[in-house]
Amino acid sequence: IMSKLPNVTTSIFTVMSKMATEYNAINLSQGFPNFPVDERLTDIVARLAKENVHQYTPMAGYPPLMNKIAKLTQDSYNRTINPDTELLITAGATQGIFTTILALVKENDEVIILDPSYDSYESPVLLCKAKPVRVALNDDYTPNWERIEKACSEKSKMIIINNPHNPTGKILTEADFLELEKILSKYPELIILSDEVYEYITFEEKHISAHTKNFLLDRCVTVSSFGKSFHITGWKIGYTIAPEYLMKEIKKVHQFLVFSVNSISQFAINEYLDVVDVNLLGKFYQEKRDYFQKLLQNSRFELKPCEGTYFQVASYADISNEDDVTFCKNLIINHGVAAIPISTFYSDHKDQKLIRFCFAKDNLTLESAAKKICEI
Amino acid sequence: IMSKLPNVTTSIFTVMSKMATEYNAINLSQGFPNFPVDERLTDIVARLAKENVHQYTPMAGYPPLMNKIAKLTQDSYNRTINPDTELLITAGATQGIFTTILALVKENDEVIILDPSYDSYESPVLLCKAKPVRVALNDDYTPNWERIEKACSEKSKMIIINNPHNPTGKILTEADFLELEKILSKYPELIILSDEVYEYITFEEKHISAHTKNFLLDRCVTVSSFGKSFHITGWKIGYTIAPEYLMKEIKKVHQFLVFSVNSISQFAINEYLDVVDVNLLGKFYQEKRDYFQKLLQNSRFELKPCEGTYFQVASYADISNEDDVTFCKNLIINHGVAAIPISTFYSDHKDQKLIRFCFAKDNLTLESAAKKICEI
Ligand SMILES: CSCCC(=O)C(=O)O
Ligand SMILES: CSCCC(=O)C(=O)O
Repeated sequence: IMSKLPNVTTSIFTVMSKMATEYNAINLSQGFPNFPVDERLTDIVARLAKENVHQYTPMAGYPPLMNKIAKLTQDSYNRTINPDTELLITAGATQGIFTTILALVKENDEVIILDPSYDSYESPVLLCKAKPVRVALNDDYTPNWERIEKACSEKSKMIIINNPHNPTGKILTEADFLELEKILSKYPELIILSDEVYEYITFEEKHISAHTKNFLLDRCVTVSSFGKSFHITGWKIGYTIAPEYLMKEIKKVHQFLVFSVNSISQFAINEYLDVVDVNLLGKFYQEKRDYFQKLLQNSRFELKPCEGTYFQVASYADISNEDDVTFCKNLIINHGVAAIPISTFYSDHKDQKLIRFCFAKDNLTLESAAKKICEI
Repeated sequence: IMSKLPNVTTSIFTVMSKMATEYNAINLSQGFPNFPVDERLTDIVARLAKENVHQYTPMAGYPPLMNKIAKLTQDSYNRTINPDTELLITAGATQGIFTTILALVKENDEVIILDPSYDSYESPVLLCKAKPVRVALNDDYTPNWERIEKACSEKSKMIIINNPHNPTGKILTEADFLELEKILSKYPELIILSDEVYEYITFEEKHISAHTKNFLLDRCVTVSSFGKSFHITGWKIGYTIAPEYLMKEIKKVHQFLVFSVNSISQFAINEYLDVVDVNLLGKFYQEKRDYFQKLLQNSRFELKPCEGTYFQVASYADISNEDDVTFCKNLIINHGVAAIPISTFYSDHKDQKLIRFCFAKDNLTLESAAKKICEI
């Protein structure tokens, strides 16, 4: 059989998490928290289990949850969305991204994807028989708008941005959005897909959500997730915000892709949104970042700046000449710590002696991992 | 914006369920049970909520659940599957169907879809730029194998079957599979996608699962769901069985479409499979069917035979000349009962004065509905 995705192999997140289990290593590779979920949320689930929450929710999502997300968007960003026409609940942000691309990108369209990037953007573009166009970030991981503009043409359908950015933790500034606006003014057909799953995990600087920018209101699809915000990566509940004329098309694909998403999780998040304050999340993870960086300050790794997400990029150039995949494998085998090689986020798998640690872990785990890392 | 799915409108299931709510009608339209979920299952959920079940499960599914599904397949059908290579847990059967089609069907391929059919098969085929070829069932809703064979050519990639069949309740016989085998022997590239979400809801005759047939082992993808089997349509947990060379491609798409599916639901179903006996389900729904048919025996509707599923097709030819969509709307407005017009399952929306009732309801609901229906 001829594969439609010939270059897809086992995801690095699967490879590394599996190897971490096999070698009983501390898993700082795949991004997920290891601390308990808020008891208020698990109490809600335990109670709801006994209620009438087990049948199909409506296609676009459980309406009270949709209203609550509209309120969250209002409270967090002072941005009004219409839950009936501009919002969709998805089976995780991944499904939001896939569904958006499938709905909006057509054969021979070009889609601009930054380099490095999270690994979820290219395959759906290829399945549409469209062309991913990779544009390298600057060395400090800020977008190179000049290069992005050069990559744009009448064929460009979409630019995919990820803000905060996985794996580098970079966030976009007002200046970045000004540059983006200039480019978009030249290409009226071009739309933005903004992956903002770490929207509430930013530190010194506040996150700027794409859908709050006036020039993007009618041409941007924002994808987010409760997985990162509520420490429930396994629940796979996300949401997508888009102007009505785009959302109409996204919903058409969603209807046949999943129809609707897990009901009890939607009911639970709906109640939890009444009591949780997502704006505490940044401070929570900022403390984790600071603590992890302090624990590693005497290691031989050089730590890169981290403005958001729960990932820390580190250079091992002073330690080893191994390529980063080999280095990560040996890190598990010889030192009992799992990380992600940064080369996997590059289209050409360029090795730069960089790896990514996930610091969404309880302090004891961070301490044990740091001890092992500092022994290298 | 040019739509990739120009003909998709709001799903009839959404339209009718919404109208049922608006008019406070008894909802026998969209297929979902209204009785409580087994307490053993909700107890499991309530307990698990407090445990470590909230982070990503592996990409293909939670391994203990995958082993349990392999055991279920062994126990139910004496068919051995390898959970590592032949099984995928999906966000409902809909995602299994969509993912399979996206992974295996290519531009200009032809996909044979029977007529009438559930509404989920055509759109993913169109998104692949492939061609749906509709083949009419016989008047008694058995497959017309002669017409199916005539529709086959070198271009045919896939035949989609649905067994038991929604909306007609028909199940395939040994004779049907012999006919299918003859056709497949002539087209070595042709594969079968078998939607078996009602596999455990059959009555006088036992269900024959496609993946138990030797001639299909290396060329059939079977999609099923726990939604129907455990009265949890809202959970959206299904599974797909395929030979390794096809499953490899399906998993590649799945990885980018959802990555993984709701964790707590998978953990719960895994435990529940230890105590539940799915083979009691047929008897449970057979009693409901018999009761519902008895309740309607003095109505002016003519009831069609029902071999499986929880749907009853009924003719109103003796009652009204309205087309079936109009009839269903008036049934809600004037008589307080919601049903599904059968024309929606036909590619040409042919009106045949037929509607579908869902009898997955507690007896009180069936009685109230029947009372209203008998007054017509
Ligand atoms: C879906 S597995 C990958 C999790 C993640 O977002 C990451 O580790 O980058
Ligand atoms: C996913 S909504 C449709 C439910 C169903 O299977 C049916 O009513 O036929």
